[in-house]
Amino acid sequence: MTDSFDFYFDFSSPYGYFASHRVDEMAEAAGRTAKWRPFMLGPVFKQSGNGPLIEQPLKGPYCIHDWERRGRMMGVDWVLPDPFPIGTVNAARAVYWLDDQDPALARRFAKAVYHTYFGRGIDITPAATVADVAAGEGVDRDAVLAVMADPVWKQRLKDETEHAVELGVCGSPFFIVDGEGFWGSDRLWMVRRWLSGERW
Amino acid sequence: MTDSFDFYFDFSSPYGYFASHRVDEMAEAAGRTAKWRPFMLGPVFKQSGNGPLIEQPLKGPYCIHDWERRGRMMGVDWVLPDPFPIGTVNAARAVYWLDDQDPALARRFAKAVYHTYFGRGIDITPAATVADVAAGEGVDRDAVLAVMADPVWKQRLKDETEHAVELGVCGSPFFIVDGEGFWGSDRLWMVRRWLSGERW
Repeated sequence: MTDSFDFYFDFSSPYGYFASHRVDEMAEAAGRTAKWRPFMLGPVFKQSGNGPLIEQPLKGPYCIHDWERRGRMMGVDWVLPDPFPIGTVNAARAVYWLDDQDPALARRFAKAVYHTYFGRGIDITPAATVADVAAGEGVDRDAVLAVMADPVWKQRLKDETEHAVELGVCGSPFFIVDGEGFWGSDRLWMVRRWLSGERW
Repeated sequence: MTDSFDFYFDFSSPYGYFASHRVDEMAEAAGRTAKWRPFMLGPVFKQSGNGPLIEQPLKGPYCIHDWERRGRMMGVDWVLPDPFPIGTVNAARAVYWLDDQDPALARRFAKAVYHTYFGRGIDITPAATVADVAAGEGVDRDAVLAVMADPVWKQRLKDETEHAVELGVCGSPFFIVDGEGFWGSDRLWMVRRWLSGERW
């Protein structure tokens, strides 16, 4: 057993956004830490044959309503952004760069990115927007801009996504705790029970 | 507001099976009744562009593990049947026929069918098997065999499935309470909160 567990998410995933509001308090309650690992849903969809929920008949309208009520229920800001879904490589690269230096800062930054997109409806595709968010957390704007364009960090995100797929990450959010996988924001209760020592 | 709410499920849905162990107690606690409405996932998949979870890379292996641990966690019999998934028109037709006469009997029968398939791993495709299950609940074997082959009940199931799709049923299980939809066995907590009077 390790102190940390993995919180996999895509910045373009509404259910990842909602889960992001609970994951740190859940970890703290168990005396552990969540390692925030953004990944690209695209390759996962390619592998599993799925696509974005919102593009699916029946599921799309259901989810739009579900996200709205979920936001109200949790008291969390929610707007359906336009464009949606988007590619989120820039923000994801920045998270890994920050995480290597200061995991707590990486988490604060990730929360700010999520809120910019789903809380305020601002497109987080452009590197400039991501850099603004980082600057708001005290990160050097030019440094983060360089990171997002750097082949090293592009590769890092590719590797992390590939590794996630190898581990069986099949959607966002996805939690891996002591090797046990949990898919979906609806499984936070199950992660909590695992963290409290339950085994099945 | 009505006294009953709708519990939509496909007899070939593992998450429907798990939910079926909780739905009646949940209804009773709220002074209401669940109307058990089997439907055919096939037309829903056709509409939404999805397919059975088990046939999807990444999601399939995840779900197989999840069903096993869910069974252990709930103390519910679980086997992954072979064949799986299957068409379940016969059992579904019988439920509607029984429900028109005696809803409580229809629920007992539906639970027995689910247990035959996912609890014992016995294929419930054949009408003869479904008739055996019905006979075990005191239903006349020949009568239920006739029902399953009757165009009237074939049409009833088609109509119910079509109506479900119109109402936005996008998977199994799915609950509709006072017009509000909830998808998935992971949303029983949310249905409970709605039933207790919460609104978002």
